[in-house]
Amino acid sequence: MELKKIHIIGLGLLGGSFALGIKKAFPSVKISGTDRNPTHLDEAISLGIIDEKSDHHPQGADIIIIATPVHTISPLLQKILDEIQPETLVMDFGSTKEEICKAISLHPKRQNYLAAHPIAGTEYSGPAAALPDLLLNKIMILCELEKTDLQLKAKAYEIFEALNMKIRFMEPHDHDNQLAFVSHLSHISSFMLGKTVLDKMENDKNIFNMAGSGFASTVRLAKSSPDMWTPIMQENKTNILEALNGYIKNLIDFRDNLVNDEYEELFDKMKNTNQIGNILDLKK
Amino acid sequence: MELKKIHIIGLGLLGGSFALGIKKAFPSVKISGTDRNPTHLDEAISLGIIDEKSDHHPQGADIIIIATPVHTISPLLQKILDEIQPETLVMDFGSTKEEICKAISLHPKRQNYLAAHPIAGTEYSGPAAALPDLLLNKIMILCELEKTDLQLKAKAYEIFEALNMKIRFMEPHDHDNQLAFVSHLSHISSFMLGKTVLDKMENDKNIFNMAGSGFASTVRLAKSSPDMWTPIMQENKTNILEALNGYIKNLIDFRDNLVNDEYEELFDKMKNTNQIGNILDLKK
Repeated sequence: MELKKIHIIGLGLLGGSFALGIKKAFPSVKISGTDRNPTHLDEAISLGIIDEKSDHHPQGADIIIIATPVHTISPLLQKILDEIQPETLVMDFGSTKEEICKAISLHPKRQNYLAAHPIAGTEYSGPAAALPDLLLNKIMILCELEKTDLQLKAKAYEIFEALNMKIRFMEPHDHDNQLAFVSHLSHISSFMLGKTVLDKMENDKNIFNMAGSGFASTVRLAKSSPDMWTPIMQENKTNILEALNGYIKNLIDFRDNLVNDEYEELFDKMKNTNQIGNILDLKK
Repeated sequence: MELKKIHIIGLGLLGGSFALGIKKAFPSVKISGTDRNPTHLDEAISLGIIDEKSDHHPQGADIIIIATPVHTISPLLQKILDEIQPETLVMDFGSTKEEICKAISLHPKRQNYLAAHPIAGTEYSGPAAALPDLLLNKIMILCELEKTDLQLKAKAYEIFEALNMKIRFMEPHDHDNQLAFVSHLSHISSFMLGKTVLDKMENDKNIFNMAGSGFASTVRLAKSSPDMWTPIMQENKTNILEALNGYIKNLIDFRDNLVNDEYEELFDKMKNTNQIGNILDLKK
């Protein structure tokens, strides 16, 4: 099977990087795209991310990719499923999956949809931040794979294989719940760490002169786009609250250990958490 | 002035990296050293970090560097100041400065001491983690510089300049207070984030399969050594509690906004925190 036409809605970091990755792996594929931000759309053309602008998905597209903020995905997906022909696969890249899968579960063309979430990103956004190798070797989570037509999902697999992505299968609820812990919580942790030091800067204006690479690493995600992250907070509220409450509790316990001079407790907690290094290294 | 003999106590990441940096910049300097961990001491020899083991600082050393966990620095420093000759400078690299400066403030050889803190490190520890360029171009904070003898501090400056370090001057209290926010808090944030996901892993054993680069970045410091960090918590308790309480409050406010569906508030908080990107970029 030869991929010919791909259409991408949302040409930011992820949509743009996917387009560049596809162009590198399949130079003959024609990529059209759209973005609600006209500046980004112009940039996507001038940066060679897409071949042509198109508000409407082209007739006979192999794949339509929705890479927009999560709250816009369900309505877009409904509309596209209503309109597409049987040979087109629609795939979204949202950071939450449960609500989207539920919203279209009874759609007569449910089998034309593949629920996907590539675990890839940087703290930057927009087409100028797109990188041809962003998706290379990364994890791609797929949900409810059994509900997607066999021949249609083969089109997506062709791309995933070309980008050497590692495929993982999850139920939508488990995806949203676990992502709250390993991704969404990291963003909140980073944003609030940044805010705490910015608050402090009101009295100590040169405080950032003292910041080293450790601070930069923990606060890097605080540069992320609130346009993307506010909808994620909203869509994944319940799971994020579970993760955030667990985190706050651990911080309060740590604080209380410190208040009470319980240094052995602090040592043991840090020592025990050191194992995360081995776990993350093994994963590589 | 030509540097000839340097002695380093504590041959971990920082002491070891400093030794390697000095060797690169001043190949003729003879470096002796010691470490309370005999394995580390052997490694330091076999890795070429030091030229010879020595429990006692050599006669006529130009500089003695104390790069041990913070709670051991004051007693060591007292003892060394008691023993050294007038031509030797003693310098420590502790992450806290107030208690140390106070402890030796009335020592008759106070002018032989320079309170220093290089803002450099990685999440790894021990001599095997040492890197010759770790200190290169990094910030070096100096406290109470006016209390150090002019000719003696010139010896230290020779090294700082060779490593192209950026010198900053701070009062010990301000140093400890601000470092609590831009360094010590980042470590707690990272350790407790790691703990929260490890707690979660008890029920979801594959959760780390879903972790991407964002999680890795926020949790990197959770690999840090508790032997080094427990004493920092203890020495800088008051300032760390100020920072940690501010962080917990910001997280609780964020959580409450989410509970109450106050998404505009969340958006504004994240948007406002985005400025940290420009601040950190400017600093480079």
